[in-house]
Amino acid sequence: DQPFTLLAGPCAMESREHALDMSGALKEICDRLGINLIYKTSFDKANRTSLSGGRGVGLEKALAVFEDVKKVTGLPVVTDVHEPGQCAEVASVVDVLQIPAFLCRQTDLLVAAAKTGRVVNVKKGQFLAPWDMKNVVAKIVDSGNSNVLVTERGASFGYNTLVTDFRGIPTMAEDTGMPVVFDATHSVQQPGGRGGSTGGQREFVPVLSRAAVAVGVAALFMETHQDPDNAPSDGPNMVPLDQMEALLSRLQQFDRVAKGA
Amino acid sequence: DQPFTLLAGPCAMESREHALDMSGALKEICDRLGINLIYKTSFDKANRTSLSGGRGVGLEKALAVFEDVKKVTGLPVVTDVHEPGQCAEVASVVDVLQIPAFLCRQTDLLVAAAKTGRVVNVKKGQFLAPWDMKNVVAKIVDSGNSNVLVTERGASFGYNTLVTDFRGIPTMAEDTGMPVVFDATHSVQQPGGRGGSTGGQREFVPVLSRAAVAVGVAALFMETHQDPDNAPSDGPNMVPLDQMEALLSRLQQFDRVAKGA
Amino acid sequence: DQPFTLLAGPCAMESREHALDMSGALKEICDRLGINLIYKTSFDKANRTSLSGGRGVGLEKALAVFEDVKKVTGLPVVTDVHEPGQCAEVASVVDVLQIPAFLCRQTDLLVAAAKTGRVVNVKKGQFLAPWDMKNVVAKIVDSGNSNVLVTERGASFGYNTLVTDFRGIPTMAEDTGMPVVFDATHSVQQPGGRGGSTGGQREFVPVLSRAAVAVGVAALFMETHQDPDNAPSDGPNMVPLDQMEALLSRLQQFDRVAKGA
Amino acid sequence: DQPFTLLAGPCAMESREHALDMSGALKEICDRLGINLIYKTSFDKANRTSLSGGRGVGLEKALAVFEDVKKVTGLPVVTDVHEPGQCAEVASVVDVLQIPAFLCRQTDLLVAAAKTGRVVNVKKGQFLAPWDMKNVVAKIVDSGNSNVLVTERGASFGYNTLVTDFRGIPTMAEDTGMPVVFDATHSVQQPGGRGGSTGGQREFVPVLSRAAVAVGVAALFMETHQDPDNAPSDGPNMVPLDQMEALLSRLQQFDRVAKGA
Repeated sequence: DQPFTLLAGPCAMESREHALDMSGALKEICDRLGINLIYKTSFDKANRTSLSGGRGVGLEKALAVFEDVKKVTGLPVVTDVHEPGQCAEVASVVDVLQIPAFLCRQTDLLVAAAKTGRVVNVKKGQFLAPWDMKNVVAKIVDSGNSNVLVTERGASFGYNTLVTDFRGIPTMAEDTGMPVVFDATHSVQQPGGRGGSTGGQREFVPVLSRAAVAVGVAALFMETHQDPDNAPSDGPNMVPLDQMEALLSRLQQFDRVAKGA
Repeated sequence: DQPFTLLAGPCAMESREHALDMSGALKEICDRLGINLIYKTSFDKANRTSLSGGRGVGLEKALAVFEDVKKVTGLPVVTDVHEPGQCAEVASVVDVLQIPAFLCRQTDLLVAAAKTGRVVNVKKGQFLAPWDMKNVVAKIVDSGNSNVLVTERGASFGYNTLVTDFRGIPTMAEDTGMPVVFDATHSVQQPGGRGGSTGGQREFVPVLSRAAVAVGVAALFMETHQDPDNAPSDGPNMVPLDQMEALLSRLQQFDRVAKGA
Repeated sequence: DQPFTLLAGPCAMESREHALDMSGALKEICDRLGINLIYKTSFDKANRTSLSGGRGVGLEKALAVFEDVKKVTGLPVVTDVHEPGQCAEVASVVDVLQIPAFLCRQTDLLVAAAKTGRVVNVKKGQFLAPWDMKNVVAKIVDSGNSNVLVTERGASFGYNTLVTDFRGIPTMAEDTGMPVVFDATHSVQQPGGRGGSTGGQREFVPVLSRAAVAVGVAALFMETHQDPDNAPSDGPNMVPLDQMEALLSRLQQFDRVAKGA
Repeated sequence: DQPFTLLAGPCAMESREHALDMSGALKEICDRLGINLIYKTSFDKANRTSLSGGRGVGLEKALAVFEDVKKVTGLPVVTDVHEPGQCAEVASVVDVLQIPAFLCRQTDLLVAAAKTGRVVNVKKGQFLAPWDMKNVVAKIVDSGNSNVLVTERGASFGYNTLVTDFRGIPTMAEDTGMPVVFDATHSVQQPGGRGGSTGGQREFVPVLSRAAVAVGVAALFMETHQDPDNAPSDGPNMVPLDQMEALLSRLQQFDRVAKGA
């Protein structure tokens, strides 16, 4: 019953400077609040709605930036992998390998991530029931790696809508025996959407994250940006950086009650 | 930002003695905890899965019992109405008239309940979006009664399953301007079911009610029974009476954080 | 394996003249095509989205019109009932009593409709699984009436959307042993909607009715109007009267294949 | 408005002999019925529920078998690809590259498949709305390949359940301008399931495929096996080979009506 850890950062890595700025700013906030932080950012947006959506800086460049972030801030870092062939290289620098929700049943990817020995954070597919995650986790554990996190990020609910079923948090914790993460910013996405990009409802991030912390989670995942409306991806659902400290401080209050007596 | 009020009691009225026992026990608990209590129980289960499911004591007998409960305990009482013709008579004794979820769009029932001048608690249908409740509330308000509560009790999610979308709580609060109640025990029902009765997942009542209180609600609705497994209805989802005090006390801790600062 | 029967007419009864016009026009079409027709129209729209939505001509006036329609056209008629107290009176004239989907679990209404001895057409609630309809039908049969029809009209799918699960048609036929009706116009409703009324997708009526007839149904239910865009209710999902003959003729082709060899 | 093409074969390639047996048997059936056949089978089951589920014969061995099937039967063949790096090699033999539903938004895979110049059949994700497929198709077309098929295979509907929304077939046809395929056997899957494998409802394949053909599709996709209950994967939803001819013959009758006048 440790206080929640935070996985946070901008959706997409933009540049070395931006990564150092963001990770530095987040570290300061978390140091003030006493929160364990893992810096999150993606080197490739592999499933954008459209070809015209930017892809990111790429693996080579990103690994160098991750090394700098780790050196400068001392923070561990997490990023997502999309193909089995990327896992070993990413794991040479990155502390936590994240399996995207759409890919949570791709056996080769799970096994390759597992075999790096790094922590694997696997997101529950929008098409999966909470009790199905034990099969996903078993693929990783049976590959020799029991450092697994499972992340709730919403389930398909009709078209272009996700819903968070909070019964899933204790269900996954019990079924898998692994720490459960709540992804507060992807859970408010409006996937697909009618146009060429995905929508989001940033205003519900505090609502759902309060619920998650009260139910009891090991970690929160939140994407944040100093200027979400001009971010290269996921702007509609990222939390503005200047609102993070107040939000986290509020969530800590609920966490203390949840983890208390 | 008052502390939450509690609407609680057994699903079905069983007898004068049982009603006095239950209301007395709940009053003691709520007095110790400093919670405002409205005693809830139904005089008729009008939409049982099967004809063989018991219906309850009936309106005449129930009103006499409600009068006794009010006299002995001093508690206000709430019960559900099913036909327009019942409203005036029920309102002669009962403080809060509740509109069942399946009936939340029946205009005549809403208008008849409104015209009694009593508080009307209308449950959101399992088939309605949170933003559609403003139309339901408008039928009551436009009939001259603005003492309205709106209750979240889950939305249809595939077959035989409900899901609680916690975004609905602030959405309904903002859209309707009315206090929002979270019905923690019907939200864990498994409606219909394959057999001749409705199932439930009592173990998730604490989970969902923690989430609701953290998000922020004006009231909680919870059915309880001294022996749920032998109750005439809704046993699978009612909270055992001897677990209520610990549960409520825990929820008060989250409520204080939610309503604080 | 008889050819499909048609339940059709305007959503709301508008006037004696309109009812005679519509029933006469539909009778001509069905006579030409050799389709058994039951004339459908409602005397009361009891669950409009808003109070400002018109309610209809009322029971008294409607029964006189139904008598005229029966006398002039020779057609049997079907209408929906909303309260137990209406059933006997409606049954004095109307051949088929219809239970609205929202009310399909209201025991008193089902029993009162059953006791009239008239055919009872009960619509599956948007919140019910196909296999749960056997419990609904049992309430009618156990009340002494085995002339029951069950109608598919869509299931809740996220917010403001219905989906038709065509597996439900054979499931209900097998589970209940009763003829299954497909309601092609309410299945394309967009319930609730963000504004003060319900939307619809008239363009999908031919799509879903082709699917239903190919799967195999005993009857089709379709609301139609000479000028849907100016109809008092359900305009967005009604079929224009002047498109009915071509649509029905096409559906007969599929029906012959479905009912053949 | 050509008659429907059939994509059919066993879920998993089992051996050279089995592939020749199955493709030969299917070719005979389709020759008798006058149906264009594309032989389908998978060389790798990349997203099995559990590690213990067999993976298949692998790419190398499969390509040799596909060559034999093509030489012996003269049939074109279709198989699914899971990683960008597989596409060129697969395309050296296989006529139609299929993108699995879970992977339908993986840009690199779509682009790599597109660049082979082969026909690309992309399955709609269980988490996507029909109108979102235009973005998926655009990734392929904008990569220089306009030989695209889009396949409906069900949408998430609560947990462990798919539902087919037949409005999606004309919606995808209109939005993308591409031929639409209905996958009749995966649409009756019960994904995930509570245990270590996926369930299915084989009995609904004729129901849903009749509906699809009546609505109007360019092609049907159906997995079949001479002994589904002992097949290495997808047994619960495959059609027994000895039932295929009667089923297809029946579907042709509906197809002729759908494509007629």
